[in-house]
Amino acid sequence: VEGLGTKSLIASRVYEELGVDRYDVVAYDSVAAIVNDLCCVGALPLVVNAYFATGNSAWYEDTDRAESLLAGWRRGCDDAGATWGGGESPSLPGLLRDEEIEIAGSAVGVVPTGQEPLFGSALAPGDEIVVLRSTGLHANGATLARSVASDLPDRYGSRLSTGETYGRALLEETPIYVPLVAELQRREIPITYLSHITGHGLLKLMRPPVPLTYRLHTLPDVPPVLQFIVEHARLSTRAAYSTLNMGAGFAVYCKQGNSAAVIESAQRLGHIAFVAGQVEEGPRQVILEPIEVRYDTREMQISLSDSPTRP
Amino acid sequence: VEGLGTKSLIASRVYEELGVDRYDVVAYDSVAAIVNDLCCVGALPLVVNAYFATGNSAWYEDTDRAESLLAGWRRGCDDAGATWGGGESPSLPGLLRDEEIEIAGSAVGVVPTGQEPLFGSALAPGDEIVVLRSTGLHANGATLARSVASDLPDRYGSRLSTGETYGRALLEETPIYVPLVAELQRREIPITYLSHITGHGLLKLMRPPVPLTYRLHTLPDVPPVLQFIVEHARLSTRAAYSTLNMGAGFAVYCKQGNSAAVIESAQRLGHIAFVAGQVEEGPRQVILEPIEVRYDTREMQISLSDSPTRP
Repeated sequence: VEGLGTKSLIASRVYEELGVDRYDVVAYDSVAAIVNDLCCVGALPLVVNAYFATGNSAWYEDTDRAESLLAGWRRGCDDAGATWGGGESPSLPGLLRDEEIEIAGSAVGVVPTGQEPLFGSALAPGDEIVVLRSTGLHANGATLARSVASDLPDRYGSRLSTGETYGRALLEETPIYVPLVAELQRREIPITYLSHITGHGLLKLMRPPVPLTYRLHTLPDVPPVLQFIVEHARLSTRAAYSTLNMGAGFAVYCKQGNSAAVIESAQRLGHIAFVAGQVEEGPRQVILEPIEVRYDTREMQISLSDSPTRP
Repeated sequence: VEGLGTKSLIASRVYEELGVDRYDVVAYDSVAAIVNDLCCVGALPLVVNAYFATGNSAWYEDTDRAESLLAGWRRGCDDAGATWGGGESPSLPGLLRDEEIEIAGSAVGVVPTGQEPLFGSALAPGDEIVVLRSTGLHANGATLARSVASDLPDRYGSRLSTGETYGRALLEETPIYVPLVAELQRREIPITYLSHITGHGLLKLMRPPVPLTYRLHTLPDVPPVLQFIVEHARLSTRAAYSTLNMGAGFAVYCKQGNSAAVIESAQRLGHIAFVAGQVEEGPRQVILEPIEVRYDTREMQISLSDSPTRP
């Protein structure tokens, strides 16, 4: 079970303020949030169910946005290779804000025959870490992004250095990484771990509960919309990389010598991927060499136990 | 995936107005809503996941109610024979009302080896319908119940004819019917359908998409709290039985001659159960003889398509 957080509020404001309907994108993002988590254990989704809650069922009377929402969800399920099983669309007056929609859902998947579930026990020093580029905010950091908008005179209409509006840039579709996982399994590439970079950014690289160090020598380009958030929210570099994905959407850990095959598979599926670093002997920590930042487990424990997304 | 609707708002008001902590009950109710739906197809739950969304994560700082919530959820999973797999507890500022909690979740179950999934195709004229008593509101009708409270001078402190407060009576725990389904399967009693009576009340009896008539000659006693809602909301009898469960929590349809075995199993598990009627040749309809009400499919289609709980 997984939710989109408050990103649907960004879609609402962009719809109102800029007249741009991106409900398809936030629905797709929600499916991505669900199935990208699921495939990290090596499971491929069979069925995805929707949970769309509104403050008032009148939300659906605007059929353009309602159809957009459903189309995005359906496309997400298709791209994940899953069936849209059904779901619930409760009206929650007095609990949810009127005129708003909350998007969440669940999925069931199966680890294919012949594959082992990935919990991190196969990780070893020397493993290579391939990072796949994110397309922007993805499903984490929406509350921070909203806070930035509320402090800007032009709000979601503010322009990034690229000329794009802030609102439109925040609603760039999240990639679905499931086909890549399926392809790596099909090619029998020895994968030792998969990490979906979500809340707490690159801290997630040390999610496996094993005493190993994750050293990155290369970081992805930072999407302009994330750079914009970092600047306007005045985040330190250290805070930025432990809050936002900063350009890293997904990480594939593989046995030494296999990163080229991982990158080739990723690129064939349209992802931008590169060798970002390796697993080393050492305490459980993440070292980001290009920005001289080191995160240790104490920091992770504090952050992850504070996390709004891990009960 | 399934949610509790707005019943958590009743728990909040009862906590504030009457000083009674029933968050354990609404958490249990939520698990019941999830697993009672699931077991209707003959599947027994393996894993239940929680989705607790708050307007502000400060909700959990009141550790009494937070522990109560977790204890109720855990007890529900135990009573359903399921593992609590995990879940999400997002903070959704600006989307959910501050100081409130939304409760939902999901479950995965398996139809045991040797059993067929129950979709209604085995139903036949002559099948007996055993009804299990509800304990009160269960997880449907909370918005109506709240509307009644808002019109009363003493709100949730209003007294029922039994002397109990309205608020306390609304928060009577929903039964979990999973152990009964497991027991009926174990005893190899020929079950032809199972119906969880939720939104739209006894209309749910004709949920199976087959041309058959469901005739009830006996209706359950109406729980005083539902009678109170019916009177104060001025619902007609016809509307009451197609809105609230009116004392019927769950229905077991079995081949003729097996109702005594169903009732014995139910009673051994602490349920109140009785033969309420039978399946007959005829158009798809529900006939409630004691109150002279007949619901046909036109009514069901209108109601179910309007339903806030079926997308």
